[in-house]
Formats: sequence, structure tokens, C-alpha cells
Amino acid sequence: MKILITGGAGFLGQQLVRALLQEGSIKLTDGSGRAEDHEISRIVCFDVIEGQITDPRVVNRSGDIGDASTVAGLIDRETGVVVHLAAVVSGTAEADFDLGMRVNLDGTRNLLDSCRTQGHRPRLLFSSSIAVFGGDLPAIVTDATTPTPQGSYGTQKLIGELLVQDFTRKGFIDGRSVRVPTATVRPGSPNGAASGFASGIIREPLSGVQALLPVPEETAMWVASPRAIVRMFLHALMLSPKDWGWHRSINLPGFVVTMTQAIATLREIGGDAAVALVKRQPDPQVQKLVSTWAARFDTAKAKAMGFKADSDFGQIVRAYVEDNRGAVRLPVNL
Amino acid sequence: MKILITGGAGFLGQQLVRALLQEGSIKLTDGSGRAEDHEISRIVCFDVIEGQITDPRVVNRSGDIGDASTVAGLIDRETGVVVHLAAVVSGTAEADFDLGMRVNLDGTRNLLDSCRTQGHRPRLLFSSSIAVFGGDLPAIVTDATTPTPQGSYGTQKLIGELLVQDFTRKGFIDGRSVRVPTATVRPGSPNGAASGFASGIIREPLSGVQALLPVPEETAMWVASPRAIVRMFLHALMLSPKDWGWHRSINLPGFVVTMTQAIATLREIGGDAAVALVKRQPDPQVQKLVSTWAARFDTAKAKAMGFKADSDFGQIVRAYVEDNRGAVRLPVNL
Repeated sequence: MKILITGGAGFLGQQLVRALLQEGSIKLTDGSGRAEDHEISRIVCFDVIEGQITDPRVVNRSGDIGDASTVAGLIDRETGVVVHLAAVVSGTAEADFDLGMRVNLDGTRNLLDSCRTQGHRPRLLFSSSIAVFGGDLPAIVTDATTPTPQGSYGTQKLIGELLVQDFTRKGFIDGRSVRVPTATVRPGSPNGAASGFASGIIREPLSGVQALLPVPEETAMWVASPRAIVRMFLHALMLSPKDWGWHRSINLPGFVVTMTQAIATLREIGGDAAVALVKRQPDPQVQKLVSTWAARFDTAKAKAMGFKADSDFGQIVRAYVEDNRGAVRLPVNL
Repeated sequence: MKILITGGAGFLGQQLVRALLQEGSIKLTDGSGRAEDHEISRIVCFDVIEGQITDPRVVNRSGDIGDASTVAGLIDRETGVVVHLAAVVSGTAEADFDLGMRVNLDGTRNLLDSCRTQGHRPRLLFSSSIAVFGGDLPAIVTDATTPTPQGSYGTQKLIGELLVQDFTRKGFIDGRSVRVPTATVRPGSPNGAASGFASGIIREPLSGVQALLPVPEETAMWVASPRAIVRMFLHALMLSPKDWGWHRSINLPGFVVTMTQAIATLREIGGDAAVALVKRQPDPQVQKLVSTWAARFDTAKAKAMGFKADSDFGQIVRAYVEDNRGAVRLPVNL
């Protein structure tokens, strides 16, 4: 089976490619409840930059997802699974409206149209976001809370969900949308995500570099580790169409962490030297966007479907250190 | 002030044009709560067919709303109000997916992009639909019910709402979306709307023509008269941005009518001869689509904002007869 991953060169994409290569196959449950192992013959890793994983099964392709003919060339009738991670992140989509519309909306539509053209109803996972929620939210967001995004990123993600839902209903794809918590600790360099500081205040100090905290310490966020997110992506794909039912969007489990708790964990693992590298520098624009996001969820439906979150921020930071030994410069206490 | 009406040659569009011409001006309340009368210098009536109203103030234009340059040519900086009614109706959008996407989604986007390009933040009313609701609905849909459309039409309307919302938040337009109940009694010929029978079983028999009832008599629908809908369109435009607040989508008031009640009203007004022209002919496809629509609403928010519905189906049918004397062939008892 061929698998297409858009945004495949991003950090979640690369982790997903590695996880798939390691498994060698993917077990998909079909409509009748039968689980079948599909050997992975090829992974097409598409992104705006070239992916870094070299393996005989991996084809790294780069290009513009906003270009319909480029996207059409990525899919054929053997593409049984599509994972759509490609997106312009929240801060960038807010700052460059046209770019966000092109990548997040046109890109998603190009991908869905290409699937439909092939006519073989591939299984498609769409990485949506908790940024679809905003505005006058209840203290705890539930499966019944109406998404009313307060940013262009969340708007574009929610439109993508609606398209995935309708393309699924029409029988063009077998789609599933998961609303991903803020991924932390995200390795690598900071990106344009307004939530980037949640990773930055752990990652940079452990690398011996100053990190900016643009929001008050009491700011709470709904987070999940990269490892947990990749595990939940695979779970979302493996579930049968019946497990999903007609409604193909779901809030993924995560857990709440305040910046105070994050800094306490940083102290545990990196000591006072690490904490000293966190600099408070309020940024009203980031605060405004982040303050509209939901931080507390009851994800009963996803849990009943077998999705599992992490539970301990300390564990997440330790996993980050294990996975990114080269980037960690301070002495750590694991 | 110039006013652009897309879908202006449709029956609601033409009624709206007539109402605006009759008033001669439109009273818009601004952000500071000040109501100002704006004389209507021009109404651009755009549709796929040419509008029928001749008046020195009316410019009838026909074209394809899916074509970006056509739409760009409809708006200039004096276009203070845009009313976006143009749409491929529910049955057609379901049968011809590409046409629905082109008109309902691309068309809406073309219009919003053209407003944004002008840069003068026009006031824009978007005619959405209760077809945004569907699936596992509560007995009564409230302002808190999450829209989960079960048809391509409802999906495209909801995406339009999200775009209107985000374009408003970004300051590109001052947008307002109203979810319109099923309009009845709709004059003229049947269109591709799956809900068309709700008008047809009144209109056709009164014209001495057989009408098909494709759904069970107990089928309930959330309806409003054309007169009430046009009145609510104008109200939605006149309200200030503050009256609307940040959330720019609303469920319009209407009332519930079952097909049994509709037939009883038909008997009151047109007698047994009219009722004899209603032929039961179940259509599983129409039943399937209509059965997913919501029929009972609590529209507390809209009522608090001053939107008013009709309350009596008999009154609606009598108004239809008054407005469409030429089409009524049977003797009627008003």
C-alpha cells in the first residue's frame, strides 16, 4: 500500500514516517470490522521543503500544495492512506491571510479533489486543531461545544473538517478529522505558531538558549506530546468507518498544563540554570490569540474510541530529552 | 449608496429589490449606535439570469458568480451594502456536486475577496440556511446547537458563514449571516430545492395543477413567508455591528408546520377541489434529505435582537394569494 503524507517534512510528519517505517505495515479495520495488515510499499512524503528521511520505501517530494496539478500528481489508485498535516501555522495564517487561505483552504481542497478524481475512496486523516474553538467558551469544552474559531487558522481548519465530512458522506473518501492539542515539546527551531512558546520555554533553556514567555504564567494550555499525537494519528487511521460513524471530527485527548507548571517541571529537570533562561516578555498579540483558545476539555467520545493521551508533563519533557539528546546542552536530571 | 444583490433575480431577490425601491433609502445603525438614512442611488441586481425589474435605479446584470473577474466588476467603493442570496439550491447541490461547490463556495469567496479588495468594509448580509443543521439533533435546535450539515448545500452554506465571520473579524467586511427557514409559499415554478414541495402543495393546487407530496404527512418543517424573510433581511442589515457582537451567524425565527396542517389550510382556502390535487408520491431521496433537517427551533437570540417571524400558516397562504393573484386559478376563500 502507498501512503501519502502532506506536511511530511514537518516534525510530526517525520516522526510519523519513522513510526510507519518501523512498523512496516499498517493494520486497517474495514467496514465489516475485519482488521487487515497492509504492507507499506511506499511513503510519499510531500512538503514545501524536502523530507530528510532516506529509505528505499520513502519518496521525498517538495512543492506547493496550493497548486492543484502538483497535488494531483501525488495520488494514484494505490494510495490507500492519505495523512494531511500540511498547514500554515496559526501566527502565520493570521499575519498573512492570503497564504493561510491558499495553503490551509485551497491546499486541503486540492487534496480532497485529487482523492475524488482517483475514485478509489482512500482513507484520509486530517490534522485539525483545537484552534477551531474560541469565543464565549464554557469552562470545559465537550464533544457538544460548537466550534467558533477566533482566528483565520482555526477557521480554515474547521472548513477543512467540513469538507472532509462532506467528501466522506458523498463516498469520495473515508475521512477522519482529529483536533490536535498543542504539541509540546516540539523539537527544532521556533515556527510561526502562536503557541510556540509552550515548547520554547522548555526546549530553548535545555539548549542553553534564552526563551521568551509572551503570556502570563497562569496561562493554561491543552497539550499532548509528539509521541502521543503520532500514536493517536495511527489510531484514528486504524479505526473502522463504523467506529467513526457519520460524524468525522473529534477532539483528541490531551492534558492541561499551566506555564507555572511547565516552569516547575523545567526546574526539576534542568535546574535553576534552565529556569533563569526563561524571560517574561508579554506580547499582546500572542496573548490575544492564545486567550481565545480552549484549555480544558472533556474528550469522552475520543476516549471511548480508544484514543489515549499522556498524563504527566514531566514524562513528556523526559521523552523530549531522550529523543533529542543532540539538542540538549544543559546537564539534566532525568 | 449603491447596493449589490447577488441572486437578485430569484424570487426573494426580486421582492427585496421591490422593498428597497419602495423605501427609497435604508437606515443603517453604525457602531456608535447612530442610525443614518442612506438614499439608495443604485441597486445592482446580479444573477445567472437577468432580473425583471425596470427602474432608473436598478441595473440588471447576469453572469457566473463562480468567475472571480465577473464578481470583481460588481463592486466598487460606493457599494455600501451587499446582499448575498445567490446559491445553487439543496437538491441541485446534492445532485451536481461540482456546480454546488462552484456557485455556493467559490462564488461566496469571490464576493468576499472582491469586498476585501475594495478595502472600504461594506456591510454584507449572507443568506444561510437551516440546512446547516442535521444529524443527531436535539428535539429543539437552540442557539447553542452545533451545526453538522448532512448535505452538500448545508456544508457549503456553513463554510460561507465561517468565511463571513472571519472576514468580519479581520475587518474586511461588516458581515452578518442569517439561517433562513424554508421559504413558503414560494411563487413561480418549482426549483431544485428538496424542500420545494412545501410550497408546491399549496401553489400548484391553487393554480389548478397537481402537486406531488414526496414525504409523509406528519413531516414537520421550519418555515417563514417570503414577506417575513425579506423583512428579516432588512432588519439584519439595519442592526449595528454592536447589536451583532462578535458572532455573526444566527438562526432566524420561523414556525413549525406539518404537511397535515398545510393540507388543512389548503382545504380552508381552496376547498376539497384544491386538496384533491395533492398526490402522495413518496420519494426516498427527498425524504432522506429532508428528514435530516431540523424542524423545531428556539430562536431566543434572534428574537432578542428584534427579528420577527409569522405565526399563522393561514395568513401566509392568504398573503401568497394576494401577492400572486395572476397565478391563482381556483376559487379561494380568504
